[in-house]
Amino acid sequence: MSLEKLYFKNDYSEGAATEILQGFLSTQLEQNTGYGTDKYCKSAEEKIRKATGIEDAQVKFICGGTQTNQLVISTMLQPFEGVIGAQTAHIAAHEAGAIEYSGHKVLTLPQHDGKIDPKELVDLIETFWNDESHEHMVYPGMVYVSHPTELGTLYTKAELEAIANVCKNYSLPLYLDGARLGYGLMSEGSDLDLKTIAKLCDVFYIGGTKVGALCGEAVVFTRNNMPKCFVAQIKQHGALMAKGWVTGMQFDILFTDDLYLKLSKNAIDMAKLLKEGFVKKGYKLHVDSPTNQQFIVVSNEQLEKLREKAVFEVWERLDKERAVIRFVTSWATKRETVEKLIEVI
Amino acid sequence: MSLEKLYFKNDYSEGAATEILQGFLSTQLEQNTGYGTDKYCKSAEEKIRKATGIEDAQVKFICGGTQTNQLVISTMLQPFEGVIGAQTAHIAAHEAGAIEYSGHKVLTLPQHDGKIDPKELVDLIETFWNDESHEHMVYPGMVYVSHPTELGTLYTKAELEAIANVCKNYSLPLYLDGARLGYGLMSEGSDLDLKTIAKLCDVFYIGGTKVGALCGEAVVFTRNNMPKCFVAQIKQHGALMAKGWVTGMQFDILFTDDLYLKLSKNAIDMAKLLKEGFVKKGYKLHVDSPTNQQFIVVSNEQLEKLREKAVFEVWERLDKERAVIRFVTSWATKRETVEKLIEVI
Amino acid sequence: MSLEKLYFKNDYSEGAATEILQGFLSTQLEQNTGYGTDKYCKSAEEKIRKATGIEDAQVKFICGGTQTNQLVISTMLQPFEGVIGAQTAHIAAHEAGAIEYSGHKVLTLPQHDGKIDPKELVDLIETFWNDESHEHMVYPGMVYVSHPTELGTLYTKAELEAIANVCKNYSLPLYLDGARLGYGLMSEGSDLDLKTIAKLCDVFYIGGTKVGALCGEAVVFTRNNMPKCFVAQIKQHGALMAKGWVTGMQFDILFTDDLYLKLSKNAIDMAKLLKEGFVKKGYKLHVDSPTNQQFIVVSNEQLEKLREKAVFEVWERLDKERAVIRFVTSWATKRETVEKLIEVI
Amino acid sequence: MSLEKLYFKNDYSEGAATEILQGFLSTQLEQNTGYGTDKYCKSAEEKIRKATGIEDAQVKFICGGTQTNQLVISTMLQPFEGVIGAQTAHIAAHEAGAIEYSGHKVLTLPQHDGKIDPKELVDLIETFWNDESHEHMVYPGMVYVSHPTELGTLYTKAELEAIANVCKNYSLPLYLDGARLGYGLMSEGSDLDLKTIAKLCDVFYIGGTKVGALCGEAVVFTRNNMPKCFVAQIKQHGALMAKGWVTGMQFDILFTDDLYLKLSKNAIDMAKLLKEGFVKKGYKLHVDSPTNQQFIVVSNEQLEKLREKAVFEVWERLDKERAVIRFVTSWATKRETVEKLIEVI
Repeated sequence: MSLEKLYFKNDYSEGAATEILQGFLSTQLEQNTGYGTDKYCKSAEEKIRKATGIEDAQVKFICGGTQTNQLVISTMLQPFEGVIGAQTAHIAAHEAGAIEYSGHKVLTLPQHDGKIDPKELVDLIETFWNDESHEHMVYPGMVYVSHPTELGTLYTKAELEAIANVCKNYSLPLYLDGARLGYGLMSEGSDLDLKTIAKLCDVFYIGGTKVGALCGEAVVFTRNNMPKCFVAQIKQHGALMAKGWVTGMQFDILFTDDLYLKLSKNAIDMAKLLKEGFVKKGYKLHVDSPTNQQFIVVSNEQLEKLREKAVFEVWERLDKERAVIRFVTSWATKRETVEKLIEVI
Repeated sequence: MSLEKLYFKNDYSEGAATEILQGFLSTQLEQNTGYGTDKYCKSAEEKIRKATGIEDAQVKFICGGTQTNQLVISTMLQPFEGVIGAQTAHIAAHEAGAIEYSGHKVLTLPQHDGKIDPKELVDLIETFWNDESHEHMVYPGMVYVSHPTELGTLYTKAELEAIANVCKNYSLPLYLDGARLGYGLMSEGSDLDLKTIAKLCDVFYIGGTKVGALCGEAVVFTRNNMPKCFVAQIKQHGALMAKGWVTGMQFDILFTDDLYLKLSKNAIDMAKLLKEGFVKKGYKLHVDSPTNQQFIVVSNEQLEKLREKAVFEVWERLDKERAVIRFVTSWATKRETVEKLIEVI
Repeated sequence: MSLEKLYFKNDYSEGAATEILQGFLSTQLEQNTGYGTDKYCKSAEEKIRKATGIEDAQVKFICGGTQTNQLVISTMLQPFEGVIGAQTAHIAAHEAGAIEYSGHKVLTLPQHDGKIDPKELVDLIETFWNDESHEHMVYPGMVYVSHPTELGTLYTKAELEAIANVCKNYSLPLYLDGARLGYGLMSEGSDLDLKTIAKLCDVFYIGGTKVGALCGEAVVFTRNNMPKCFVAQIKQHGALMAKGWVTGMQFDILFTDDLYLKLSKNAIDMAKLLKEGFVKKGYKLHVDSPTNQQFIVVSNEQLEKLREKAVFEVWERLDKERAVIRFVTSWATKRETVEKLIEVI
Repeated sequence: MSLEKLYFKNDYSEGAATEILQGFLSTQLEQNTGYGTDKYCKSAEEKIRKATGIEDAQVKFICGGTQTNQLVISTMLQPFEGVIGAQTAHIAAHEAGAIEYSGHKVLTLPQHDGKIDPKELVDLIETFWNDESHEHMVYPGMVYVSHPTELGTLYTKAELEAIANVCKNYSLPLYLDGARLGYGLMSEGSDLDLKTIAKLCDVFYIGGTKVGALCGEAVVFTRNNMPKCFVAQIKQHGALMAKGWVTGMQFDILFTDDLYLKLSKNAIDMAKLLKEGFVKKGYKLHVDSPTNQQFIVVSNEQLEKLREKAVFEVWERLDKERAVIRFVTSWATKRETVEKLIEVI
């Protein structure tokens, strides 16, 4: 039923890119070694090393985003350390306490359109170290940013550099959650390319699930800093896939002929069309998002009307009269669907 | 290179059944709701309820086996309880401490061809309760069996009933790890069918990864005993797939027209052929396995020769002269490959 | 050296009340059973049941406050739940992540002179339940208050009732951290007595370490709601003392002839004297604390001068020019020390 | 009632040595800084450094034994590592899963009168490293021995050296649980003195609770290898005492004028007397223990008779006819009590 409505609920509602499905078909009866030791993983790792410009980058493939966050954060932190992130950070707000489950606190900073501020970051760290009782507090052990953020916004190169400098000064690893990284990379006007991100971050992941894969995220350690016995730790978290090549092959295909970027571009183009449509029709944007998530302010009346036509998420209530709703495009969104939406809003 | 050899290393080396790959292709651009709320999950759950004969069974799909074990065990146990299993149990031996990572001890029993003995189980439980200091010990909180076991063997109906009775007497949930369940169900002479298993166990999982799926296991709670807020707990473990339908759809297809059993049957037929071949050639079996894992005793010389022809796993060293090696067939194993193997051994 | 200065750093700097030390002496060679099964624990439990007016209250003695918080919170919460507390709550700010170590998130509310507001509490809970994605969030599972708070302030009876009502409405246990409970009970003008606290809270602890004991806190479960196999869980946390009677006997003595209250009264009297002295000399109070912790606003110059005379803690910096400092009195503080302080400030 | 019987249940039934109680009395109103930063801790650390012969040993005081074991083991292990110990090791058998609660597996070896065998230790480690799948297993990360063992036995110098050599060869820290260390040091004929233990072990603890203290254990890191930010980690475990000097002062006194050894000697002398008495009367020893725990084999009839005269623990049932019972002497055991016991058995 809901499928008859125009569907913009998220970017993980469709299957996988054609090339990926063809890949599974054409290799169906090949026999690969297990647990990520296969040739597809190796090839994908190599392509990612090239794309990121980090020759000795260490790359591992994990099935999903929360799993990846829990794994990376808990294996890179010392037991007494926490991870710093925005109040709106996925790890702080929408992972059901997966970081705390692994024993670590999320130390939150105010969010500014989903982003953290380097000065506030310095303040938090300095306040900790200047506190005489800091041995009774959680040590700042890592900085987490998401790019695009949970609000669809992007860090500029200068902003990420500023954060990376703080991290360097205080010897804190910088971790970038790229669940929707492709959409950030293809956003018009963004000056943060993959190589710059790889250069600035100590670890980050390239999201597959939301960018055309069936499932899978590629974690990249850029400083020869993959945690010791990382495969055992992946296994210990229940995150080591027997058919590791299922994720490896998908990334091998996504990083062939720029497929990852091409898929991302479609979402960006469609989001731009959608955003312009809403603006033209007089809607107010909640945040000026340059990526595939668009946040629109609507009155209760508008909300009800839109619900008859489309499927989307109510992001938050602003007050009794108004809500923020979220429309998401994806690698698979069709132009005609967006155009139809704009017609009827 | 190794692909030119005859490959019997495991049952997760090939891709997925044709029907599954076709399923992904034919639904590529459908838009499904996330996190397992989609129609494919619902349909698969319904089919599994039917196949297991438990009308109100609660079914969830998880990406992999270790994840499933950690999740089920840690969410069903009280914090002060441990899980009882054989010394050879996967959770005791080959999951990198995933159960302990979740805070729980694995209480081990001797293994008898991979199986636990109901009397020894009673002994362990009684010894605990009779110990005046049992508040200083780990409480037995659950019983774990694998079927087929890690050694390819199967419980008989009488054996599983005996264990289930012990569990009932002591109010301990019985959990069956069915990573290779299909191969157990199709083994000639086994008197344990799916409905009986569902009736005897409080929770079990039906393995997909090793039986023709790309990835995925179906957890079945049979007593309306799914842990509270289980979806939140799956998320907390990092195990909730955004594209939940990726696993749901695979089980929907596996449980259509008995595909799951048909795929399993091939592995069993091929294993039988392989086993007979080895026996005819004078090899000694380490365990008399009626399923798709065959354990052969070889001298060092035989080992070296076989390595030139085939790919398999060295299971353990018996002594300086002899080792046990493992050959595994799968849903995808071809008759000609087995025949060729028998020729050259 | 610092001992020659006037010492107001905290309320755990002196030893134990004379009666307690005499108790240890007079029972030195008695042979008691271990792990809290002795007669002193039993007697203390009985006296606490009487003092709290809860006939079937369940009482256990734990060595320290953070241990107690971790133990109570983690054993009463479901794995997917967090505990709600003020941003200034000890568990949120100064326990080095002990709650997160046990796998649970601390969900923070704004603090108002160290206290939480029942309306904001309702908001947090309602926002959670109204969020369509709440299965991806940490469930509110318990409410934590400290009384006196970390800022020395006290809840009124009406305030605690309001919070208890919210807890009741949402079926959340209310937990009161009474590390300094005695000082709250003896504060002039407080309308919250021990029986009312016991009636309103599902669990709380009566602090001994900071109120005249060598070490020890008494946890009181008021609704027959002690977690299952609690002794085993205390042991599992490493918190079960072999010589359980060391803490039990101390509480037995503290709850004989109102010793606990008498010790507390001294600290309150001395704090009042000290507070009045500071105010008379023109100092500004940071918070109007009716208990044994007094927070004074000082200029940098004042800070340096005071440091020559007294030992206290710098609580926080207000700005470049001003800091908040904390003076603490205890059961052992002498009138002459306070008078000498007032003379020299 | 049971107090009228002759009491040999354990070595933590009496209070503390006179010198310790006097220490508390004479310093009652001194004001010490908190959390182990006081002069008594410093003095005790210094005395322990001297007694152990390790000039730069790092010493910390913890309230109890299980707490100490959980803390030391979990902070020294990597997340993917387990600790190796005998099946009878306290951490394996009688700590209610405290090690697993901290996320780590206890890897067990056969016990030989409570001790582990260096060859079996090598086997376990070699088997791990030679296993092709060891990334799916728990890494051996530490070796745990208790001295005296849970069966009262002692390692010889040669035995501990052999184990220490294995540890060195495989870069595994060796941890010695000295809950009853004093009784080991004073056992006649033992060639393992404190300095040798300190030299051979990477970390160990000197038990106070069972050797005359009210509570407290002293952890000694001998290789400048105290885990990073250890105080914060103690706090995070809920194990940092506000009045740290309560334990520090006790060890300061125990390590003055050899009090620790003198107290221990009494238990050894009384145990010898008791053992000889049982043997003379024709009882069979279960283990030949040279320390303060004596294990006697009794028939059911003997058991019932002894129960009328004395309090002791039933250690285990050997068969339907016979049990092993444990008699324990302590620093406080009186000669006349032992003599009376021997009379009546």
